[in-house]
Amino acid sequence: MTRKIGVIGMGNVGATAAHYIVANGFADDLVLIDIREAKVKADALDFEDAMPNLPVHTNITVNDYSALKDADVIISAVGNIKLQDNPTDDRFAELPFTSEAAKKVGAQIKASGFHGKMVVITNPVDVITSIYQQVTGLPKNHVVGTGTLLDSARMKRAVAAKLNIDSRSVVGYNLGEHGNSQFTAWSTVRVLGKPITEIAKERNLDLDELDHQAKVGGHTVFHGKKYTNYGVATAAVHLANTILSGAETEMPVSNYREEYGTYLSYPAIVGRDGVQEQLQLELTEDELKKLQISADYIKTKFAESTK
Amino acid sequence: MTRKIGVIGMGNVGATAAHYIVANGFADDLVLIDIREAKVKADALDFEDAMPNLPVHTNITVNDYSALKDADVIISAVGNIKLQDNPTDDRFAELPFTSEAAKKVGAQIKASGFHGKMVVITNPVDVITSIYQQVTGLPKNHVVGTGTLLDSARMKRAVAAKLNIDSRSVVGYNLGEHGNSQFTAWSTVRVLGKPITEIAKERNLDLDELDHQAKVGGHTVFHGKKYTNYGVATAAVHLANTILSGAETEMPVSNYREEYGTYLSYPAIVGRDGVQEQLQLELTEDELKKLQISADYIKTKFAESTK
Amino acid sequence: MTRKIGVIGMGNVGATAAHYIVANGFADDLVLIDIREAKVKADALDFEDAMPNLPVHTNITVNDYSALKDADVIISAVGNIKLQDNPTDDRFAELPFTSEAAKKVGAQIKASGFHGKMVVITNPVDVITSIYQQVTGLPKNHVVGTGTLLDSARMKRAVAAKLNIDSRSVVGYNLGEHGNSQFTAWSTVRVLGKPITEIAKERNLDLDELDHQAKVGGHTVFHGKKYTNYGVATAAVHLANTILSGAETEMPVSNYREEYGTYLSYPAIVGRDGVQEQLQLELTEDELKKLQISADYIKTKFAESTK
Amino acid sequence: MTRKIGVIGMGNVGATAAHYIVANGFADDLVLIDIREAKVKADALDFEDAMPNLPVHTNITVNDYSALKDADVIISAVGNIKLQDNPTDDRFAELPFTSEAAKKVGAQIKASGFHGKMVVITNPVDVITSIYQQVTGLPKNHVVGTGTLLDSARMKRAVAAKLNIDSRSVVGYNLGEHGNSQFTAWSTVRVLGKPITEIAKERNLDLDELDHQAKVGGHTVFHGKKYTNYGVATAAVHLANTILSGAETEMPVSNYREEYGTYLSYPAIVGRDGVQEQLQLELTEDELKKLQISADYIKTKFAESTK
Repeated sequence: MTRKIGVIGMGNVGATAAHYIVANGFADDLVLIDIREAKVKADALDFEDAMPNLPVHTNITVNDYSALKDADVIISAVGNIKLQDNPTDDRFAELPFTSEAAKKVGAQIKASGFHGKMVVITNPVDVITSIYQQVTGLPKNHVVGTGTLLDSARMKRAVAAKLNIDSRSVVGYNLGEHGNSQFTAWSTVRVLGKPITEIAKERNLDLDELDHQAKVGGHTVFHGKKYTNYGVATAAVHLANTILSGAETEMPVSNYREEYGTYLSYPAIVGRDGVQEQLQLELTEDELKKLQISADYIKTKFAESTK
Repeated sequence: MTRKIGVIGMGNVGATAAHYIVANGFADDLVLIDIREAKVKADALDFEDAMPNLPVHTNITVNDYSALKDADVIISAVGNIKLQDNPTDDRFAELPFTSEAAKKVGAQIKASGFHGKMVVITNPVDVITSIYQQVTGLPKNHVVGTGTLLDSARMKRAVAAKLNIDSRSVVGYNLGEHGNSQFTAWSTVRVLGKPITEIAKERNLDLDELDHQAKVGGHTVFHGKKYTNYGVATAAVHLANTILSGAETEMPVSNYREEYGTYLSYPAIVGRDGVQEQLQLELTEDELKKLQISADYIKTKFAESTK
Repeated sequence: MTRKIGVIGMGNVGATAAHYIVANGFADDLVLIDIREAKVKADALDFEDAMPNLPVHTNITVNDYSALKDADVIISAVGNIKLQDNPTDDRFAELPFTSEAAKKVGAQIKASGFHGKMVVITNPVDVITSIYQQVTGLPKNHVVGTGTLLDSARMKRAVAAKLNIDSRSVVGYNLGEHGNSQFTAWSTVRVLGKPITEIAKERNLDLDELDHQAKVGGHTVFHGKKYTNYGVATAAVHLANTILSGAETEMPVSNYREEYGTYLSYPAIVGRDGVQEQLQLELTEDELKKLQISADYIKTKFAESTK
Repeated sequence: MTRKIGVIGMGNVGATAAHYIVANGFADDLVLIDIREAKVKADALDFEDAMPNLPVHTNITVNDYSALKDADVIISAVGNIKLQDNPTDDRFAELPFTSEAAKKVGAQIKASGFHGKMVVITNPVDVITSIYQQVTGLPKNHVVGTGTLLDSARMKRAVAAKLNIDSRSVVGYNLGEHGNSQFTAWSTVRVLGKPITEIAKERNLDLDELDHQAKVGGHTVFHGKKYTNYGVATAAVHLANTILSGAETEMPVSNYREEYGTYLSYPAIVGRDGVQEQLQLELTEDELKKLQISADYIKTKFAESTK
């Protein structure tokens, strides 16, 4: 009965996600929510001023949590990016602010009667996804974080640039925390029909250097404009659309892994029921260690946030 | 030979236009230019980080005027929106800054050998479009301003909201300066199969009130977020796409009208050759007076800018 | 909760509509129905073979009426185009076949519990739309025929070609039966900012000749390939999308007009509630006469079909 | 300078490809060519009748080879599908007809001065691609056949259906002749983060059975409607778009492999320069044997066709 998406948080990321949705008609009904009433109304009106020059129509509702009751997907883009602008580039600098926000927003989502799927962008995403799941009481597989869907994209961009190929022709994943402890699981990366480890030997690629470029890219974006929005908003909408259409697509997203006892990014099959199946990769010893460290870090931070 | 668009100025408007182009694959080659090197590189990288989650590919070049030589369309979004944040909400507050910028940018465009069409968003748009045309030496009909394509959209949005219809089902134009002297030419507005003046009588619509809502809308957007971007960027890309595809679409845009001796917004047929035909509306006496005042205002300001 | 469309009849028109939907991801769930089991299964599999090269996903169900229970829109493209291939080019040649088919299909739609909106393409469309409405028991404004949305498009194409403008820059309607008695209501047609009657004087346009070209166009298509599909399927999907998104767009479609006591094409506002408002045009005496003749013709044929 | 595509052959496949292009605005200029003048004119007019209900514009030219001079891509969909309707389901039944057609069409393409890239769908595609390359004198990497891009899609569809995942989440290739000697190179197929051979063991998948389903699918489509169009047309347009945008995407297409001395399907990086890089897979002994047999078969048939 039509596609309904909610976007909470009209900062750079939320507004970009909303614009991408409006410009492409991905949703029929769009609910926009932000505590800055003037900002969210401004964006809504700006979208309506765009519509006469767009081929698609979207019905926009502003700051009405009750309208989320029958939404298919809610995207949480709540955040305070200024808090990330610190010497360590650590997304956890946002935690005190965003964990409180997630608790408040989550309670209001729950009160609305919402029973769809949540896509969480808010950083530190693995911890915030956990908080949303707990506060809303939604099933664990119905609350998903964008996680390393963005980091994997950055890795693909760096690899593709090196090899002069399409970033969509690179297969593979970054795993773990969407933060400083994430890593490229090179054993999963394939390109030009072969494991990248083989291509690296053939062509003298320095995988550590590529890893560096992927990460530095994110920092270049952040320091160049004091926020990042296009990459992550595109990832979030891609994830939301996958849920809406029931495509059952393999994606590295933040999902709850029982064996690690936490949300962290690991590829899963995403469909109308959220995370429908979890992959079981054959990682190297070294990758498994890194993943454990990343998981432990998220768990520690989550414990702190719920004290 | 593929579609090539240049966007100059990576502020809120230019970056939104670029994102809309990248997200939809409207261009094959996209040239982004901004004097703030870090900002434009950040946006370019952010777009590339979005691509693995997008179905379309765009080749992006940064800060290389020579790449504009064979561009089909250049969109000028140069601006300094902070200058508009003044008590009078007057777009002319930007003029001293943008007229200088347009002269510099225009000279570099000319030096590149560019011989395509220009779409100008930079405010005050009618004056800046004139300046670009003079500096680049391009034919008058190859340099077009978005002008009241945005104001007309706002009028349609206000009328549509009042009548519970699609803003795309409202026909008609706002004319003159894209600024405080522009006005809705109600004699051109039709809705529900009739002139709106008739519908207004049938349904007790207050056209002055609608005019007010259209204008206030723009201010609401501006004051709510200190800039406007989605409406105007969508209008600009719609205009650019119309030129690229050669659709020969009727649009109220800023084009040079001989009888007024200036660029101002008046509907025209836009196609691959830019402004291909100028409409001749049958305006009322009152509308003609308003248009003359608007034209005179633009000419005065243009004269001042070139002193 | 996701968009669900049913398409009944996988002939040239239905299959083209389905392909347009699949290729653009307009629906999340698509139910395809045809009595020719092999044909509809072939099309469904062919669509699935297309998906790995498409950016969007659609879940396809074949020949299951029960799946229509929660569909948003059903498009009826049932027909037997060979019956139209007769010396008179009369769409009523299909009536004996399609009226029986509509009764059977309508009964199965009703039995499914379907309570969405119907978009009828099946010819003679005004009569068949009536039959569907009666058999399904759906509200009159929830069953809509594509009607002269196609004829209006053909008129726009002919006018646009003559004036070297975009067919989307022509405003106006063809009215009445989607058949030989339909006509262009020239009093409603506007182009280049003026009534076309005025432009016709200025530029020596022969409106009868344009009317002829619009009609002959349809015959050229039909005789050139023994069916027409792209124009009408695009109109039908546009209508379905308008309903899904709730755009409240003005469209000349076949809707039940009380004053004529029949379905016939006349512009209406189409939204999520189907035909939400009926326009009241100010037609000329001559146009009113033509419309009455067209209405009477449809009523006579409908009476015959229900004997 | 705008995107220009030619489609030669307005049968089921060519017309579907053209419709997909028109409905999405993939090209600004579209040249349609068919020896059946009435058919191609009918399709062109039908597309123009669709445009008023489409958001994008395409300029269509009919049966003018000279218009191909500056086309970016020509898609050859020349064929006579009735010839495939034989007891052996062998695409080579079309060869006597299509090889003659390709020689004639190729000569006219050459005479036009065309210097873009060719995408060949015409069957038997590997042989016909060779003929086009020889007749037009274009570089070998500028003439590409859709080849097993379709067969790979069918394999992905069959694997995905078995595992309840998105067909886009299956990686891997079918290789060799686009015909009865093609085969799935299972050593290249990966799914759920692992080689499919492993998944097959874990879940008791019968790969031969999946191979069978992929192939039977094509036959089901063919026998259900006496032609196939959506899958192959989508593959061809995807290939054309990849060339236009310069995406440099990995695709299994028919390209000339020096070591086999023939066109055959093997993954390559496709970009603005056509086939820009050829992959070097690590196939099994068995797969290499099958590929050699397939190559030899194509070469024999090609030799026959040029006698």
